[in-house]
Amino acid sequence: MSTFSIHTLGCGSAKPTMRHQPSSTVIDYRGNLFMIDCGEGAQLAFQRQRLKFSRLRHVFLTHLHGDHVLGLPGMISTLGLGGAGGEMTIHTFEDGAKILKEIFGFFARDLPFKLDFNVIRPEEAVILETDSYRVRTIPLKHRVPTVGYVFEEKSKPRHIVRDMVDFHNVPFSMINRIKAGEDFIKEDGTVIPNRILTANPSPSLSYAHISDTVYMPDLAEKIGPVNLLFHETTYLDSHEAEAKKRYHSTARQAAMVARDAGADSLLTGHYSSRYKSDEDFRKEALDIFPNVILNREGLLTRLD
Amino acid sequence: MSTFSIHTLGCGSAKPTMRHQPSSTVIDYRGNLFMIDCGEGAQLAFQRQRLKFSRLRHVFLTHLHGDHVLGLPGMISTLGLGGAGGEMTIHTFEDGAKILKEIFGFFARDLPFKLDFNVIRPEEAVILETDSYRVRTIPLKHRVPTVGYVFEEKSKPRHIVRDMVDFHNVPFSMINRIKAGEDFIKEDGTVIPNRILTANPSPSLSYAHISDTVYMPDLAEKIGPVNLLFHETTYLDSHEAEAKKRYHSTARQAAMVARDAGADSLLTGHYSSRYKSDEDFRKEALDIFPNVILNREGLLTRLD
Repeated sequence: MSTFSIHTLGCGSAKPTMRHQPSSTVIDYRGNLFMIDCGEGAQLAFQRQRLKFSRLRHVFLTHLHGDHVLGLPGMISTLGLGGAGGEMTIHTFEDGAKILKEIFGFFARDLPFKLDFNVIRPEEAVILETDSYRVRTIPLKHRVPTVGYVFEEKSKPRHIVRDMVDFHNVPFSMINRIKAGEDFIKEDGTVIPNRILTANPSPSLSYAHISDTVYMPDLAEKIGPVNLLFHETTYLDSHEAEAKKRYHSTARQAAMVARDAGADSLLTGHYSSRYKSDEDFRKEALDIFPNVILNREGLLTRLD
Repeated sequence: MSTFSIHTLGCGSAKPTMRHQPSSTVIDYRGNLFMIDCGEGAQLAFQRQRLKFSRLRHVFLTHLHGDHVLGLPGMISTLGLGGAGGEMTIHTFEDGAKILKEIFGFFARDLPFKLDFNVIRPEEAVILETDSYRVRTIPLKHRVPTVGYVFEEKSKPRHIVRDMVDFHNVPFSMINRIKAGEDFIKEDGTVIPNRILTANPSPSLSYAHISDTVYMPDLAEKIGPVNLLFHETTYLDSHEAEAKKRYHSTARQAAMVARDAGADSLLTGHYSSRYKSDEDFRKEALDIFPNVILNREGLLTRLD
């Protein structure tokens, strides 16, 4: 059972096609669902992947273009029918919160759950943090204010080595301090080094979601060495000039960001409707970066 | 080639399912497309049926519930990408026009075509009329203001009987008056009765679209003897009490309206997501009315 996985609901761009839906991605982190963008049809794709609305607590919008947002009114009003209770937070810019409140006020009145808005800005900031993970924003360069999101687990406590802890009679009251890395000092002053009592924790996992943006050479450093990087690949290198003009990236540029960030793997997407085959995006990215995952609707990508 | 046909894009109700999409219907009248309601996903269903956006000139909204409206922002913004030019009119109530203008102003700016709103009211009225057809509204009884639409061809001019017109040397200048039903009076005063010079025109066709409403005994008379009646069948008779409570109709009640209106055929739809099979709607309606067409996504129903 994966504790951190990515569901692709839609990886097309603005113009819907028979092959691709508009943008929407769901992160499943230990059973909590985080949606990034909600293009038209996302609520159906969500159900098709057997995800539970009752576990969806956060929706993060990258920017306010229709192909990333217009599935939200329908999904929220469907949630309203469910009588689910609970609460949900939508993370978006101030003007997005304003128009969405107007739309929900009209088409999704009297919701049986609490709907909050967290107003974000196009800047580097930590916008959500718990004991186990943190979500931060990175400003991107698109035709309208846009942010990417980085989801990262915090460093985990060390694993207790049961046998050694018992052998050295470590009192239970000390366990959390041992987990935190402290040595154990016996009453006779003997020091039992932490490395004997504990083992390394499982590594902290991270996912970055970068859509939509023109190629930014300085982006890689802001992202860091994530385990999985989704970076939009709207165009192929043959349309690099248009990509730049439309403030989008090519598969080659996405691969350069993955390489420079030190990511383990690159996930493609936001394909322009002009291309008949997606395989070319993978080919182009592979020239620059070795671990390329070709995105498609319904894809489940595990980080562990 | 049919001159008057009905494309079903979505015939589900509020809760989207794997089997049914939310409401949307397209009327193809001599190559002109009229959309009635535009639930989420309608723009894709429209393309799946190989319909041309360039021929879509009117969108008629029955009421302002999300499952009848929330596909419109996405469709309009997609049309905006097409650079189609031309013009489109959305027929809706005043508050619908207001919220849609706000949404389009945000998500579908700088459209390359002219988008007009025709503000209608929940009353009996002719809202659109040309030389060949007329569209009228009928007020329904739902939880919010709602109208049904009736599309009817006007009576057509009589067909000229070429041989007789030539035989009696009817001058060309007279032809339109003969088509309109006038007799032909020769210079010597001989009267050639119109019935000899013309044949009956093909019958005028009509379609009524009734969604959503509680059963209204007086509705049939307002609709009249249409060729095809779509009447919502959200529930089965076993849930008649709930249908009434939710201001919806059962398949049995829809069949009663079709029978009392003198319709040729009844088209079902707006099925509640609670039912696993649609066949029961047909069975129930057939007990009351003989010509029942079981609606489904992708269905094409010809009136001629």
